[in-house]
Amino acid sequence: MNAISGASAATATPAVAQSAPPDPALDERAVVFRGDGEPKTPAGMISRLAELEAESALSPDNYSLGGSVEALEVHFADMLGAEAAIFMPTGTLANHLAIRRHCGARPRAIVQEQSHLYHDSGDTVTRLSSINLVPLAPGRPHFTAAELEEALGASTSGRVINEVGAVMIESPVRRQSGQVVPIDEMRRITQTCRERGIPTHLDGARLFMMAAATGIPAADYAALFDTTYVSLYKYFGAPFGAILCGGADFVDGLYHERRLFGGGLPASYFAAALALSGAQGFEERFAAAMDKAALLFERLNALPGISVGRYEDGSNIFPVDFDDGVDAHLAAEKLAERSVFIHTQEDSQDSFALTVNTTILRQSNDEIVDAFSAALQ
Amino acid sequence: MNAISGASAATATPAVAQSAPPDPALDERAVVFRGDGEPKTPAGMISRLAELEAESALSPDNYSLGGSVEALEVHFADMLGAEAAIFMPTGTLANHLAIRRHCGARPRAIVQEQSHLYHDSGDTVTRLSSINLVPLAPGRPHFTAAELEEALGASTSGRVINEVGAVMIESPVRRQSGQVVPIDEMRRITQTCRERGIPTHLDGARLFMMAAATGIPAADYAALFDTTYVSLYKYFGAPFGAILCGGADFVDGLYHERRLFGGGLPASYFAAALALSGAQGFEERFAAAMDKAALLFERLNALPGISVGRYEDGSNIFPVDFDDGVDAHLAAEKLAERSVFIHTQEDSQDSFALTVNTTILRQSNDEIVDAFSAALQ
Amino acid sequence: MNAISGASAATATPAVAQSAPPDPALDERAVVFRGDGEPKTPAGMISRLAELEAESALSPDNYSLGGSVEALEVHFADMLGAEAAIFMPTGTLANHLAIRRHCGARPRAIVQEQSHLYHDSGDTVTRLSSINLVPLAPGRPHFTAAELEEALGASTSGRVINEVGAVMIESPVRRQSGQVVPIDEMRRITQTCRERGIPTHLDGARLFMMAAATGIPAADYAALFDTTYVSLYKYFGAPFGAILCGGADFVDGLYHERRLFGGGLPASYFAAALALSGAQGFEERFAAAMDKAALLFERLNALPGISVGRYEDGSNIFPVDFDDGVDAHLAAEKLAERSVFIHTQEDSQDSFALTVNTTILRQSNDEIVDAFSAALQ
Amino acid sequence: MNAISGASAATATPAVAQSAPPDPALDERAVVFRGDGEPKTPAGMISRLAELEAESALSPDNYSLGGSVEALEVHFADMLGAEAAIFMPTGTLANHLAIRRHCGARPRAIVQEQSHLYHDSGDTVTRLSSINLVPLAPGRPHFTAAELEEALGASTSGRVINEVGAVMIESPVRRQSGQVVPIDEMRRITQTCRERGIPTHLDGARLFMMAAATGIPAADYAALFDTTYVSLYKYFGAPFGAILCGGADFVDGLYHERRLFGGGLPASYFAAALALSGAQGFEERFAAAMDKAALLFERLNALPGISVGRYEDGSNIFPVDFDDGVDAHLAAEKLAERSVFIHTQEDSQDSFALTVNTTILRQSNDEIVDAFSAALQ
Repeated sequence: MNAISGASAATATPAVAQSAPPDPALDERAVVFRGDGEPKTPAGMISRLAELEAESALSPDNYSLGGSVEALEVHFADMLGAEAAIFMPTGTLANHLAIRRHCGARPRAIVQEQSHLYHDSGDTVTRLSSINLVPLAPGRPHFTAAELEEALGASTSGRVINEVGAVMIESPVRRQSGQVVPIDEMRRITQTCRERGIPTHLDGARLFMMAAATGIPAADYAALFDTTYVSLYKYFGAPFGAILCGGADFVDGLYHERRLFGGGLPASYFAAALALSGAQGFEERFAAAMDKAALLFERLNALPGISVGRYEDGSNIFPVDFDDGVDAHLAAEKLAERSVFIHTQEDSQDSFALTVNTTILRQSNDEIVDAFSAALQ
Repeated sequence: MNAISGASAATATPAVAQSAPPDPALDERAVVFRGDGEPKTPAGMISRLAELEAESALSPDNYSLGGSVEALEVHFADMLGAEAAIFMPTGTLANHLAIRRHCGARPRAIVQEQSHLYHDSGDTVTRLSSINLVPLAPGRPHFTAAELEEALGASTSGRVINEVGAVMIESPVRRQSGQVVPIDEMRRITQTCRERGIPTHLDGARLFMMAAATGIPAADYAALFDTTYVSLYKYFGAPFGAILCGGADFVDGLYHERRLFGGGLPASYFAAALALSGAQGFEERFAAAMDKAALLFERLNALPGISVGRYEDGSNIFPVDFDDGVDAHLAAEKLAERSVFIHTQEDSQDSFALTVNTTILRQSNDEIVDAFSAALQ
Repeated sequence: MNAISGASAATATPAVAQSAPPDPALDERAVVFRGDGEPKTPAGMISRLAELEAESALSPDNYSLGGSVEALEVHFADMLGAEAAIFMPTGTLANHLAIRRHCGARPRAIVQEQSHLYHDSGDTVTRLSSINLVPLAPGRPHFTAAELEEALGASTSGRVINEVGAVMIESPVRRQSGQVVPIDEMRRITQTCRERGIPTHLDGARLFMMAAATGIPAADYAALFDTTYVSLYKYFGAPFGAILCGGADFVDGLYHERRLFGGGLPASYFAAALALSGAQGFEERFAAAMDKAALLFERLNALPGISVGRYEDGSNIFPVDFDDGVDAHLAAEKLAERSVFIHTQEDSQDSFALTVNTTILRQSNDEIVDAFSAALQ
Repeated sequence: MNAISGASAATATPAVAQSAPPDPALDERAVVFRGDGEPKTPAGMISRLAELEAESALSPDNYSLGGSVEALEVHFADMLGAEAAIFMPTGTLANHLAIRRHCGARPRAIVQEQSHLYHDSGDTVTRLSSINLVPLAPGRPHFTAAELEEALGASTSGRVINEVGAVMIESPVRRQSGQVVPIDEMRRITQTCRERGIPTHLDGARLFMMAAATGIPAADYAALFDTTYVSLYKYFGAPFGAILCGGADFVDGLYHERRLFGGGLPASYFAAALALSGAQGFEERFAAAMDKAALLFERLNALPGISVGRYEDGSNIFPVDFDDGVDAHLAAEKLAERSVFIHTQEDSQDSFALTVNTTILRQSNDEIVDAFSAALQ
């Protein structure tokens, strides 16, 4: 496995390297414009675990209850201003259980057609919980409050009422180059739901990317929703895991459901402790990375041959255009020699995009600009 | 209950008549431009049953197996060129079991967003069979083969493959004023499905309306699909019932599923025998009605004050415009005096449409034109 | 179809008569010791419908709402002392929806292992509503309150709590020769459930057989349970149908669920009106039949060659033994000549049982005794 | 968390130590007669991981595909003579997916009433896969082939056929003191299933305990079944995980289902590598432990005050009786001083049982006998 592919691979099949390119995971100076987090290595995680053990920061859980798992839950509930939180082994399960519990006996949940839950989760909510996920805004990053109202109307205009039990927003939207749902639209959507007694869920797998991009605190986003899921492995350094925050009533007893799905791991504290550690100071580090990226991209745009753009409502992904004369593959190879890594797979949806993460802090902008400058010649 | 509301009521709540308007069900000369079939009365059905009994045409079934039920199944399988057919108590169950059996373990079925199954069946396929109904062509009568291909692609591009196990077409589309899916589009769609090994189902509740409107035999439509459902109560005279036609393998053992859903009625032969009787010569009668309607509407359009239009790909429903000077309610009352009945409820989606059925054969076009002529003065 | 097989056939395959035996359905003097109700014929039902029409007792429903259907619901709710009732096309659906609604999100319901719902309904509750039916008292007519308490304990002693959402009792138990659950056991069981907040359901398909056998009014049984289902076609004369009685809250909106399962027939009023008519005075007639049977069986036991027994907690089914010298088949044939019909199929579970119904009132006990006396010689 | 409670706790609530008893997990000489595996500590797992990293035995997986996970799968498939194997995060999911895939559209699976899947898994198979788990042999360790045949007959004797799609055997049975199903009974049961085309699954969470107790190789057991699940965390040293072995067709594509349930962890290679390491030589070590235990218990039975018994068809759990004069609690405390640990919680089902695992190899039998001898005085 390529160490960063966990965050960026669009399919389950790992890319096969043809000629052993330099591995950014093994390079401490590597600035990696791929994926939301820092590359992970076995050695890196083991040494981090050893440090945590030395600091007495590892406390075993019992079937994902207590210990470091509980410490993580308390930390994230606090960070997002929620009453409670529960660890989940995967984001798939976190989103599923949120929708499942919100819906109860109500048969419909509304989601973005472009959402991970609708497209990339094997129709899990429908197949295992018999809930109809109604997909709005096909091909677009998000639906509007007006479109939501229309869908809510349609759900009760049939001969049999199909009550909507939950509305979910994913933001940033991975399938739409990380574009975010504008907060004003989120406010209108969640307000509509509150008025109608429909619980709301935020698939905030990359919530902290969004917060850094918009300057709006993660907790402010979470406050709009009844529940929020955040990924633990994409950028907090855990090998797996997710956290689901919400009201005390919502979280109470949810470990039974986690277990029902086969997600009650006997011991999850390694993952929990690594995520808890990775979350310390993350918001500040990521904000610094985004600020630095803004300055960097201005300077890159002054170079000949490259143009870094910006998506409407973008987060930490930025489109790149190379001039026709530039051999992008060659440029990528030259950049790698200076420990700067960009996508080189032409078939990837992110081939010509730069994804900002905290590895940008490992070199000065002068160094990175020099690297691009040399690579583009 | 208003005797024709079974066919036309958009909701479960019967309209309350304020001043005992004439009841077309009790008037043998009534030309009723509402609903697909002829109004039914208790007395009418009982006397028809007595006739059938006298003709030895009533044969009890055993939990919807054998007897008149089997005779009906054989007749419809023959009529539609299918290997086999099975009686169902409702169209809801017929459509559901078709999709359920086609899908097997595959999690997705593709339908029109405007279909009865998606909008008006309580999400039954999702709630009881855990199948994700993917709604295409929102707000439009039908999707195209190209849109289908795109949806099929999307269903396998996610991280987990969501295989499509069935594609359904409803035609005519009740929610779209009875517009039909053009046969060439049906051919492309079903061809695409055959190439990919995806079974197809036709919700042909009103298949015989479509056949009469397009001049294409019902069996030609059915031949394109693996299975076809036709309603028995909308225009064949049964109090309830549906027929589901398909291959012998498909139908084999399906009565177990019918029973599973609580649809194995101990005795269905009254309904079956009435439908079988009503189906005799129906195609010819309905074709005559449509032909007569075409001539009639030409003559009505020559009258001042009224304009009868035509929907693109329409079937037996025709939009009507009254000139501003005409009091439509008053006109309707005057028409009723001459045993011609049109919609008068302004809130109905069909208020200003004329639905053609075989009651048009009860008066000559001269009589009907005279009635309109008098009513519009 | 043999006209009485609806009530007595153990399988879906009708028996094939080898040499056209006399048909008790066509014989007005027929005393038929098979099945709970009187044999039905097409002609009989049609003439009864015509009478009802003449009496203005037929009122169309709209998708099983209103009209004669509502009249039936009101009548049965009154008769059983319930707040409300709802018509269902089959008992399978009535039992299913009762359990489904009682359980809500709770995953378990407790039933008798020998119940129709556990053995003869295709695991419908599990397959369509994902509820675990826990079968108690394997091979026996019923479980005790103590066994229930043990099962309730077991359901919460596992690592994940499996809450019980409903407890159902079937009585009489068809698979156990119509034996009934003693009312004291029912009281203990339902009391246990009330204390624990678990709703209870009575599968009283043959409730009126039980009431006549024990002398305890049907309403007294129904009062113990939150909901009660009674069959309409087994002995009330309808071609199909069931009634589900319960609290107003329970019944409210349940027609949406009925429709979800494909059970919202467009017109059910023929069945409803026939059942309503058949229910008039039924309790009295059936009680008379049971009283008469008691006297009859005493006299039969005085004849040589036959012995009519009694099941422990039996209802209207009585075991019969013929002495070794008697040819039971021949005796049955001779009885039929005098319009007395008993089971003759040796492989049937009821071969050597007499089932009492109101046809016993058609001949005097003297006549019936004479018939047996002649047949046994 | 008490470090060994993962293996032995009957509930999710960890016991709270009142006066900091010695922790066997921190004592390298600890002989722990509790649980199937050796106590795990954070430090122990980290140092083991570091060793594996140094040996290049850690290879990252990609969403539980490839790397050390694949190495583990290959190893277990080989060890159990299966064509293929797949890693699962929990045994709950392994058992569930086995039953789910075996059943396909068939609605029933037969299990022991005392099985973990029936009692301790939240009715997961029923709630999420709508399969009816039919519980045989209530309160006993296992059912017989004859009882199975009877249940198979009952499943097809109802009015609707309820086909059995899988038969599962758990052995050893945790709820029955680790008693095993005799291999001859297993042979009859699996033979019956093969003849009827019903796939079989072995819940062999503790398969290697059974193999060591009976002397029958694990692969011989696995050969009887279509699929076998073995726990990875109970005694192979992983923090979590399970392996599911079966035919190539069975395993093919099963990772989609794993993901569907939210069990496709982004990185599972730590758990997989630890289990793979722990499995090396395990069979030999555990066999040695069992042999040594047999000799030890003979010697303990020669001491006054204690009697170690043997369950019929027992595996690695042995019942213990202390004479009335012995204070078991005091004895346990004295034993702990010599690094020998037994259960002391009176409410535990294993309070007076000794569970044998490989920690018995850490001291000589002389030492252990001395410890007991001293403790019993």
